[in-house]
Amino acid sequence: MGLHAMTNANFPVDAEGHTYHVGVKPGEVANRIITVGDPARAILIGSYLDGGNVIDATNFKKYLNYVSKDIVIKTSPRLFTTVTGRYKGVPVSIVAIGMGVPMMDFFVREVRAVVQGPLHIIRFGSCGSLGRARAGDMIVATDSMACSRNYNYFHNDEDQELSETDFAELMVKGEGPYTVSTTCPADAELTDALVAALHAHVPTGVEVHKGLDITADSFYSSQARQDPAFRDQNAHLFTYLTEAYPTAECLQMESFGLLHLAKSARPLPSGSKSIRTAACAMVFAHRVQNTWVDPALVEALQAKASFAILDAVIAVEIDAKELHPEEGSVWAKN
Amino acid sequence: MGLHAMTNANFPVDAEGHTYHVGVKPGEVANRIITVGDPARAILIGSYLDGGNVIDATNFKKYLNYVSKDIVIKTSPRLFTTVTGRYKGVPVSIVAIGMGVPMMDFFVREVRAVVQGPLHIIRFGSCGSLGRARAGDMIVATDSMACSRNYNYFHNDEDQELSETDFAELMVKGEGPYTVSTTCPADAELTDALVAALHAHVPTGVEVHKGLDITADSFYSSQARQDPAFRDQNAHLFTYLTEAYPTAECLQMESFGLLHLAKSARPLPSGSKSIRTAACAMVFAHRVQNTWVDPALVEALQAKASFAILDAVIAVEIDAKELHPEEGSVWAKN
Repeated sequence: MGLHAMTNANFPVDAEGHTYHVGVKPGEVANRIITVGDPARAILIGSYLDGGNVIDATNFKKYLNYVSKDIVIKTSPRLFTTVTGRYKGVPVSIVAIGMGVPMMDFFVREVRAVVQGPLHIIRFGSCGSLGRARAGDMIVATDSMACSRNYNYFHNDEDQELSETDFAELMVKGEGPYTVSTTCPADAELTDALVAALHAHVPTGVEVHKGLDITADSFYSSQARQDPAFRDQNAHLFTYLTEAYPTAECLQMESFGLLHLAKSARPLPSGSKSIRTAACAMVFAHRVQNTWVDPALVEALQAKASFAILDAVIAVEIDAKELHPEEGSVWAKN
Repeated sequence: MGLHAMTNANFPVDAEGHTYHVGVKPGEVANRIITVGDPARAILIGSYLDGGNVIDATNFKKYLNYVSKDIVIKTSPRLFTTVTGRYKGVPVSIVAIGMGVPMMDFFVREVRAVVQGPLHIIRFGSCGSLGRARAGDMIVATDSMACSRNYNYFHNDEDQELSETDFAELMVKGEGPYTVSTTCPADAELTDALVAALHAHVPTGVEVHKGLDITADSFYSSQARQDPAFRDQNAHLFTYLTEAYPTAECLQMESFGLLHLAKSARPLPSGSKSIRTAACAMVFAHRVQNTWVDPALVEALQAKASFAILDAVIAVEIDAKELHPEEGSVWAKN
């Protein structure tokens, strides 16, 4: 059932040193990482690594246990998928983490625990647009903030919708039905490399936008979706967010977790920054027009954007002395 | 890549009415649900339904696409697994949701959207013990509170550990590195049924404890695990939680989300309660002794507890007139 004998309840690893949830040990993850939600997307990007055969994306399941001397795919019982190989000769991993900030937390902490040297991580996800970007465009996060449900607000059984004015006043005081955090920046150099690579790769007609990302703890309530089955007090949330945060471009569910942990990471013993991050997303939904992207558009965009993100994740230099050792790694040259 | 044409960005469903993430439509989920994290556990419990063949739990993957006239297993591209059939004649679903409160949110909202009538949901997870329960025991939640990272506390680059006194003072004011919510109760009748069924089924020597659950937004920082790679300010969190909440028994990552959404759900048009919930967990780690459970113990306990939870989820009556229609459902008698 996926449960192996673990040691140390503080930071559990199995007898071979695999972390408990992501299921990776030293030498199985590279310093440069692309993180996505969907395992199918990880496998697709992995198929673009050196020595890979570009796969039929509609039939990715048969690749889940694929192992070659060039590319290694690992799945963990807790639903993480890690694909590792080389891109243009540089070791790269792609890690699919599922959805939500807690899954981002598992990924960042367990990968940080098994990789020596700096981590350069680019998030590639999907998002809803707050209005400027159209469905099928790309958005790069300059920075990110969290929008979370304030559980305590819902402690009573009150079910009358707040007025727009009362909602805004409570939000500003941090006492509303939702709370917003201060922002965390993406790494400027990695973000510039990402924007440049996207411009070079995305199909004609796709625009690349830059702006503030809002990471919500619910696809529904804290992204202002209306659901009559629940008391959510979110009728005015969308208006509040767009007016209070005019640089906000997108709503999704993971990027803040990545940027926040990068900011919270202690420097390496060498003095180098521990984790540098950038984040981008394809616009799946346009929340003002209430429209959804055509799946055919996504397939084309996803393939092009994947090459852009691979180029970007190897673009910013890491001192060779600081890289995780090749010896014993899955990307070591035979 | 799992992306189908969706309509309505507010509550996306595909052309056949399947919800976007859990991937279920009306008639594919029963009113009585057991929710777990691990898909392997869902398949195992599903194999105990009427007409099921008890499977070899170590080889569950071959069952992922298993469909019989008695039991239907569905997996969604976003990693939800739903198993539906009957237990002692009563329609029951088991839904594996992965990890974290955002995944619980997807599950509760998307299932609420496709099932007519009351939902009775029992969570069956794993947890760390705060001291009273031993590894291998069971804990039933009487109520639950959320312990969340206060992102804003980490906005500066301060890296000196707070003193125990300063930490406690900030926590009480809601200005500490972590925040704790007010508590949400489990449904008393469903919880009593669960405790009684566990006592009837669990192996000799396994104790069944009742107490407050603490649901953390990180397996690491907000569960007071020490990780030198990050500024977490959590050296005093464990002591604070156990002293401030003497009825707290366990730490895990999902139950509060379930109990909170049950409390936030509006009554059904009939006036009936929309969602009734109970939650229990196997103790995998003892956080004071810093020990981990023997996997062999878990396999035996999990099998026995699964039967207890199946008995409990059908124990509390639902008015026949309020049940989801059988016609067109996957559990309809042929």
